[in-house]
Amino acid sequence: MTQLEQLTLEEKAALCLGSTVWHTAPVPRLGVPAVMLSDGPHGLRRQPDGNQAGISGSLPATCFPTASALGSSWDPVLVQRVGAAIGAEARAQGVAVVLGPGVNIKRSPLCGRNFEYFSEDPLLAGVLGEAHVVGVQSQGVGACAKHFAANNQETDRLRVSADVDERTLREIYLPHFERIVTRARPWMVMCAYNRVNGVPASEHRWLLTEVLRGEWGFDGVVVSDWGAVHDRVAALAAGLDLEMPPNLGVSDAAIVAAVRDGSLDETILDQAVLRILGLVEKAPQATDGFDADEHHALARSAAADCAVLLKNDRDLLPLRPADGDTIAVLGEFARTPRYQGAGSSQVNPTRVDVPLDALSAAVPAGVRVDFAAGYGIVTTELDDRLAAEALDLAARASTVVLFLGLPDGDESEGADRRHMNLPANQTALLARLAEAGTDVVVVLANGSTVHLSSWDRHAGAILETWLSGQAAGGAIADLLLGVVNPSGRLAETVPVDLRDNPSYLNFPGEQGHVRYGEGVFVGYRGYDAAGRDVAYPFGHGLSYTTFTYHDLAVTVTGDSSVLVTCTVVNTGARHGKEVVQLYVAAPPSQVARPVRELKAFAKVDLPPGAGETVTFQLAARDLSYWSVRDQRWLLQGGTFEIAVGASSRDLRLTATAQVPGEAITVPLTAEATLREWLADPAGAAALHAAVGVDDDGKPAGILGDPESLTVLGDFPLTTLTAFPGLGIDRTVVAELTRTRRQP
Amino acid sequence: MTQLEQLTLEEKAALCLGSTVWHTAPVPRLGVPAVMLSDGPHGLRRQPDGNQAGISGSLPATCFPTASALGSSWDPVLVQRVGAAIGAEARAQGVAVVLGPGVNIKRSPLCGRNFEYFSEDPLLAGVLGEAHVVGVQSQGVGACAKHFAANNQETDRLRVSADVDERTLREIYLPHFERIVTRARPWMVMCAYNRVNGVPASEHRWLLTEVLRGEWGFDGVVVSDWGAVHDRVAALAAGLDLEMPPNLGVSDAAIVAAVRDGSLDETILDQAVLRILGLVEKAPQATDGFDADEHHALARSAAADCAVLLKNDRDLLPLRPADGDTIAVLGEFARTPRYQGAGSSQVNPTRVDVPLDALSAAVPAGVRVDFAAGYGIVTTELDDRLAAEALDLAARASTVVLFLGLPDGDESEGADRRHMNLPANQTALLARLAEAGTDVVVVLANGSTVHLSSWDRHAGAILETWLSGQAAGGAIADLLLGVVNPSGRLAETVPVDLRDNPSYLNFPGEQGHVRYGEGVFVGYRGYDAAGRDVAYPFGHGLSYTTFTYHDLAVTVTGDSSVLVTCTVVNTGARHGKEVVQLYVAAPPSQVARPVRELKAFAKVDLPPGAGETVTFQLAARDLSYWSVRDQRWLLQGGTFEIAVGASSRDLRLTATAQVPGEAITVPLTAEATLREWLADPAGAAALHAAVGVDDDGKPAGILGDPESLTVLGDFPLTTLTAFPGLGIDRTVVAELTRTRRQP
Repeated sequence: MTQLEQLTLEEKAALCLGSTVWHTAPVPRLGVPAVMLSDGPHGLRRQPDGNQAGISGSLPATCFPTASALGSSWDPVLVQRVGAAIGAEARAQGVAVVLGPGVNIKRSPLCGRNFEYFSEDPLLAGVLGEAHVVGVQSQGVGACAKHFAANNQETDRLRVSADVDERTLREIYLPHFERIVTRARPWMVMCAYNRVNGVPASEHRWLLTEVLRGEWGFDGVVVSDWGAVHDRVAALAAGLDLEMPPNLGVSDAAIVAAVRDGSLDETILDQAVLRILGLVEKAPQATDGFDADEHHALARSAAADCAVLLKNDRDLLPLRPADGDTIAVLGEFARTPRYQGAGSSQVNPTRVDVPLDALSAAVPAGVRVDFAAGYGIVTTELDDRLAAEALDLAARASTVVLFLGLPDGDESEGADRRHMNLPANQTALLARLAEAGTDVVVVLANGSTVHLSSWDRHAGAILETWLSGQAAGGAIADLLLGVVNPSGRLAETVPVDLRDNPSYLNFPGEQGHVRYGEGVFVGYRGYDAAGRDVAYPFGHGLSYTTFTYHDLAVTVTGDSSVLVTCTVVNTGARHGKEVVQLYVAAPPSQVARPVRELKAFAKVDLPPGAGETVTFQLAARDLSYWSVRDQRWLLQGGTFEIAVGASSRDLRLTATAQVPGEAITVPLTAEATLREWLADPAGAAALHAAVGVDDDGKPAGILGDPESLTVLGDFPLTTLTAFPGLGIDRTVVAELTRTRRQP
Repeated sequence: MTQLEQLTLEEKAALCLGSTVWHTAPVPRLGVPAVMLSDGPHGLRRQPDGNQAGISGSLPATCFPTASALGSSWDPVLVQRVGAAIGAEARAQGVAVVLGPGVNIKRSPLCGRNFEYFSEDPLLAGVLGEAHVVGVQSQGVGACAKHFAANNQETDRLRVSADVDERTLREIYLPHFERIVTRARPWMVMCAYNRVNGVPASEHRWLLTEVLRGEWGFDGVVVSDWGAVHDRVAALAAGLDLEMPPNLGVSDAAIVAAVRDGSLDETILDQAVLRILGLVEKAPQATDGFDADEHHALARSAAADCAVLLKNDRDLLPLRPADGDTIAVLGEFARTPRYQGAGSSQVNPTRVDVPLDALSAAVPAGVRVDFAAGYGIVTTELDDRLAAEALDLAARASTVVLFLGLPDGDESEGADRRHMNLPANQTALLARLAEAGTDVVVVLANGSTVHLSSWDRHAGAILETWLSGQAAGGAIADLLLGVVNPSGRLAETVPVDLRDNPSYLNFPGEQGHVRYGEGVFVGYRGYDAAGRDVAYPFGHGLSYTTFTYHDLAVTVTGDSSVLVTCTVVNTGARHGKEVVQLYVAAPPSQVARPVRELKAFAKVDLPPGAGETVTFQLAARDLSYWSVRDQRWLLQGGTFEIAVGASSRDLRLTATAQVPGEAITVPLTAEATLREWLADPAGAAALHAAVGVDDDGKPAGILGDPESLTVLGDFPLTTLTAFPGLGIDRTVVAELTRTRRQP
């Protein structure tokens, strides 16, 4: 007998629930153990067994940069290494599956959980999510891609319906999941809390079964987000295998009853059980701890590779302190760093690097580092005494570094932000420094983008570090002093104003519904389409060196794939990394398409003077759109513009590619319009033949009347039959559609 | 026996179709005549009986200003007079129902039929639509409000589905129909061609029966737009009485068959027949012609009251030609005026005033009016010879008036515009004139708004005349010379750039669907919400005199209605009309609300130095939003801001009103969230009592853990029962919801 056959109905039902908040259900009589799941996109949050439901108090683990930071690395190799380290820690702590990566699209800058997500772009989120899963799973533990799908806000998150059309789902909110599932094969996928077009994600058969398993071939376990199940039987039937936390005594009983009364096919239950048993079987033996120092060092180098140098006027950075110089380090965040967000992702770090300490330790002997808090974190009002101290110190210093950022309370799972502003006391301090003539280097710590246009003129340089984990302090010192050359690039646009964001009028929705009214025009796709100026564009990031782009070559191969090569040269004096970004602009299509879309990228590491030729292979899919009408990806041919550059608005080289796509044919039925018939050469000929000519030999009826053609051109033939005098009567239409019958 | 009882089933079915393109079906044996319907929102288009289907060749009628012009009058008294004149002409030509007004909302500046519609605002469209119907019907003939509903584009107009949520329908796309139906009681309403949320408007039971008849009490005939019926039986069942043009031999047979086989209840057919018979009975005896001179004079004064003086630097206007002066009239449109659009609204005018001739005739003796064409209408390339002639003439003239406008082909029923630009040759000529130092008065003729920001700096004054009917030429002369003081105000925003329009990313849709992604944020509601600069705001329009606003007083009465008074004084030296506009800003609500909305207006006519106190009475409905959840208008109380001014961005006086609205109560069920329970004082008390306190006397479980409260606050109570340690178990929830059972 198979294991499945040995299980009672009750045991099978119990297996589809956890046994605790963090464990699957064991079946001791058959030797099936319970295995443990734990939170952890940027570091493990393994709760001790006695404290299951709380947020804090988890076992110490390395707090790596959050996804908002890792997203800015544009570096799948790095993300994979971080994933592997998290996997190793999980295995050492007896955890079978790490509940990450979080890969939801940053639809609005206000989403309270943006710090847990990679990007506003699905390609970037997909590549990095894939790398994370590969990394975690290289350690023999499972990863869990979440939250599936269209989970893009915290407001009313357990009930709100994301009302979104299929093309938008297919092009923006699903492709990264597809990439992760098909390429990295995560052990688990977590369903979202929200509804999608009215149906809870936990009960969404189209998402969980038709698309995820049917189209993408997912064979792992679908787990609920913690508390996402409303109707356990409906969820099971839709494809949700494991409910967490277990609604013990309720959900299992409901499953048993549904099988007994025939409303649930037992084979569906069996499939879920088999998947869960398969996962339990894969669960590894725990290892003996991990090397916390090594992981801290990785966290430091990762953080350094994530920071984005937004501006650097007069080459203020890197700092070049001379003997006897004083560096004024201002801002409470230099002493009390913020390096992660709140909620289920909150890690209990093994240690924390303080930027002030790290910088003090790293400067050459003879350089003095002095500190003034300048402002308080939990207030928004300027404290004149603190400000005066900071201004005073700045006046005496040769260099001023000001740490700014969002307070803890501004960013958490469970609540969206109301605005994008830094606290007013922080920007006021900066303004006073600028008024005093100080050239200020700003170091930013925030998980979501903040408004910069209102104050960035007061800063000479801005280093955006996001929430970069427990070793951010050391990384910041490395970056400021030029030990590491910044190579992060924005994974999301920084708008001039929140109101420019394409989702602005539709976030966070109302009365249980949020309309994704911007469609595919999310992030830079929207800013570009609407012609909005932005503060810093998607893909932007400076370096301490410079890069030039050369020799863009584009070759279209027979099967509508496109080979692109270009050469990037480090023309500066420092070693540096460039993120080469490839954007595609599609020709006019039957659907509205973004001005340009990121379709490939590569991070190259170049010594001074060195060059590298980068090769990108675009597949037909990369040039296609999702045709709802055809229910598939459709490549509409024409002239595509291929551009490579250093950001979405810093395109260095552009070429065109004539891509032979599919002919867009309209079935010439009676419901096709006059214009559609006339646009088809054969259809036009048939129509003209059927309608005939008048006494002067000119086209008869409507075909000889341009005015009526304009007004009635969008009328289906069948509609025109009711209009006398047009020459398109029922006999004509019947004959036309008979001879042109469609396949 | 009643007439209905005497009809055979076949006769009843036949009555639900026309007998010709323009006539209802007669029943000769019962003495039921055929009555005639004709196009005609801005003048009658009565086709002669031999030419039913074409556009041109209708009997001569007065071509009044189009709705785009009349909308800018903000003057229901004027619109009613025009309606009465059209009604009189209809009656004289044996027409029983005039197919107008067209009142669809201008969702996008690109809609090809915008020239036939009044406004981007439903209040303005409703007030003017109501006036039009009252005017037409004052002559004993019927009016027909169209196109019902959400008919806001021409692209794919017979098939496209307007995908729009109910709140947006209720607040933007229906209120003007509601006003017209409930106040003016039109004989007919015409259903739209398009689908609404997937259902053809002709078969939309919710629209045609539940809302139109059920909620608004419409008792007239619902007629199809010409060709809008797909399924005659489904349409009849949904509430569509009369199909036009008649699909003879098909639709009547289908009705008969459906009654015979029981799929259509004969009482539904009977209701439609009774409504049609009722309309036929109301049809008047034809009168003996109309006074074409009198109507032409009305058309002239109407056109003068519609023009919007957009800018008037250095008081260039009115012209004050002195003896010996030369006025250079430039632009082909001065000689070949454009005064109406193409399609079903196209009137065969009784005569046409040519602006050049009218101006020449109107200037004082001794003033010379010279003309140069300057450009050709049907090309977009500058003709150097024509331009040189114009520049030459301008150099010799004391005053330069340049006529610009859209060519015929740019605006027609049946096709949307692709852009908002004037032809490049026209703006290039203006630029050359400006470069030569000429202070140019521009007279614009266009049915839809055009981009102005790219060239308006080259004009000293701009008079927007829209498409103002056959007497526009004379009206323009009156306005330029100051015989009439301009008093039109923009009924739609002129954006800086088309891409700023809130519908831009979602117009005209794709693959059979257009998503109304901007929701209620249509027109100025959207520009204001997104903080967009505009070229000229909604409500804007200058005068040759000046007005000041005083003494705004706001009184809230017991039933949540608001009485507003303010005084307007003509402080200039000329007689003039001011449009006093009242905008309301709502307090924060559970739905996203516009920054401000037009809720009342009045056009006052004041001699120099005179003042008038204007009174506005706002009802509770004017302050309410449509709550989809509650399926009714809901007045959420709070501090409303009441502003009066001369445009939506020229608010002169502002006051606040504390309006006692309804308490927004969330039913405290198990599905209510923790935050919702805690936000309700009684709910919070009950919850605290049930969860209890810990050993230290502090709230136990989650109630004592702010971190978890943030993360889990949006969880319904029932969801929390699966989380141990929070203190919210199933017993607690059962007890809480038992004791707080909702009505």
